[in-house]
Amino acid sequence: MLNKFKETGERYKLLKELTEVAKVESALLKGARKFFEKNKYTEVVVPHLTRATGSCENMNTLFEVDYFGKRAFLSQTGQLYLESLIPELKKVWCIGPSFRAEPKADSRHLTEFPLIELEFNGNFNELLDGIEKLIMSMIKEILHDNGIKIVDKKRLSKINAPFKRITYSEAIGELKEFGMKWGDDLKNIHEKYLVKKFGNQPLFITHFPIEMKFFNMKRNESNPNIVNSADLILPMGGEAVGAAEREFKYEDVMKRLKKSQMFRQLLKLGGGIEDFKWYLNFLKEMGNVPHAGCGIGLNRVTQFILGVDDIRASTVYPLNSETLM
Amino acid sequence: MLNKFKETGERYKLLKELTEVAKVESALLKGARKFFEKNKYTEVVVPHLTRATGSCENMNTLFEVDYFGKRAFLSQTGQLYLESLIPELKKVWCIGPSFRAEPKADSRHLTEFPLIELEFNGNFNELLDGIEKLIMSMIKEILHDNGIKIVDKKRLSKINAPFKRITYSEAIGELKEFGMKWGDDLKNIHEKYLVKKFGNQPLFITHFPIEMKFFNMKRNESNPNIVNSADLILPMGGEAVGAAEREFKYEDVMKRLKKSQMFRQLLKLGGGIEDFKWYLNFLKEMGNVPHAGCGIGLNRVTQFILGVDDIRASTVYPLNSETLM
Repeated sequence: MLNKFKETGERYKLLKELTEVAKVESALLKGARKFFEKNKYTEVVVPHLTRATGSCENMNTLFEVDYFGKRAFLSQTGQLYLESLIPELKKVWCIGPSFRAEPKADSRHLTEFPLIELEFNGNFNELLDGIEKLIMSMIKEILHDNGIKIVDKKRLSKINAPFKRITYSEAIGELKEFGMKWGDDLKNIHEKYLVKKFGNQPLFITHFPIEMKFFNMKRNESNPNIVNSADLILPMGGEAVGAAEREFKYEDVMKRLKKSQMFRQLLKLGGGIEDFKWYLNFLKEMGNVPHAGCGIGLNRVTQFILGVDDIRASTVYPLNSETLM
Repeated sequence: MLNKFKETGERYKLLKELTEVAKVESALLKGARKFFEKNKYTEVVVPHLTRATGSCENMNTLFEVDYFGKRAFLSQTGQLYLESLIPELKKVWCIGPSFRAEPKADSRHLTEFPLIELEFNGNFNELLDGIEKLIMSMIKEILHDNGIKIVDKKRLSKINAPFKRITYSEAIGELKEFGMKWGDDLKNIHEKYLVKKFGNQPLFITHFPIEMKFFNMKRNESNPNIVNSADLILPMGGEAVGAAEREFKYEDVMKRLKKSQMFRQLLKLGGGIEDFKWYLNFLKEMGNVPHAGCGIGLNRVTQFILGVDDIRASTVYPLNSETLM
């Protein structure tokens, strides 16, 4: 029903349905924040108009803004800004809009969505444990909220941590019939197949090829071709969380940045190493400590909670290339 | 100290100071959310790429974005989007970035800051009471947080509700020596004078001239020249909250919109009534109930809490026309 009105300007007609969705989003955000409070994280206010340091892997989906004659981007992540406070604060988080200039207006894509982000002074296993606790805190909030009527709470009450964990290599092994080989990126169809195969529960896929991922994801100690990263795949929602241990030594980060796909895109856009100046100087002058973090796309979690295939049904006012209001 | 580094790209050098500011911002946001939880408000996810319905009074400070060939703005307020859920949810809130294309890089202006917004089905007096409780909840969180060291808690512990309330007309009466007459806008220097005059405590100024304010602020029942609006002025921070009862009947809103200064600016920008189509259609078709709301600029509250004159000292990464990073 909620994906019927492509023109967001008419969604007010669905007031009763929007109300139920708003309650679910509100409870999920509350559940996430309870995790942060319980575990003594500090909230950080990060900028949403940035240079390249607000970008994710794919610089082709950045919205540009004329910023008093300079070029600015609408940020996609606050990760590097959060990281800069790790040496003192140890555990930090933010929730804010993440922007993607994605022209497709379909069941999978939004141009703006809330991204829940955390960084903390922990290792890879502590990161996966933390993500499980955070997701379970969000689910718990839904289960305990008597005002929420549209969720199948019986189905949700069967979700338990720890979540199943398989490596990217194992995932590829399971996907031979799709003609997938090591180094290929997992698409939505593959994620759906894997989630179903492993019992329709949240599924971690870990240790992706280094070529594929963000430049500061930490290279694995025993296999230089992979990084200590994880994607969390949810039934209905697909890839909901991207997570990794981070490189934190100046020389390592600099080397990885210069070799990254992202940096090649940045050069094409007329940018260069000076776009990362503050972050690199911070690492060189102040240093950082071992840490890890993740970003959780709220709408993907909401899809999972609501059991809806269409991302436009996961929020009150979904924004895509056709729904500006 | 924190306003020394004009180039935000070098602020990481002040890591220890930034850490203390982050703790204060985090506690203030937590205190605000405690008010919302306690009073059973629902959080709503609002868009930050919008048409004119994401704009405040002054359309000259909108950042423009090329949105797949259409013109979009970076939003300044989620107010109208929040209002559209009042008929069912009654009490709603959001906290998100508010963007202002303000070229001045000085002690008063930021191009992005977190705006705490609420709308609820109450009247003007209930609104002022609510704002007092919200601000006091923010202060309480600071006072109870033992990790916060840079705040003069003794000074803060003397702040008590209810806050002093004077009308705009009374304020003008106090400002004769400045040559102010009825209809003139209050500037920072006037606000400072009034706050000092009334004991260096938070000060409500109410019932502003209708010409001066946002088109859907409710016209006063007994004096058609003023609206049921309030600004909260804080020592050091200045105008921290803009608040009002809202017009909610389609015909009244339409009439006020067409006569507003904002609408004249919109026409100059090549826009028109179609930019408000969804909001006007919502009022016409669904109707709304009496309600009121406000927006609280976080940095102005933080200035008050920290006792700092310069807004650049009120946040970790202040964004103005010179500090893009």
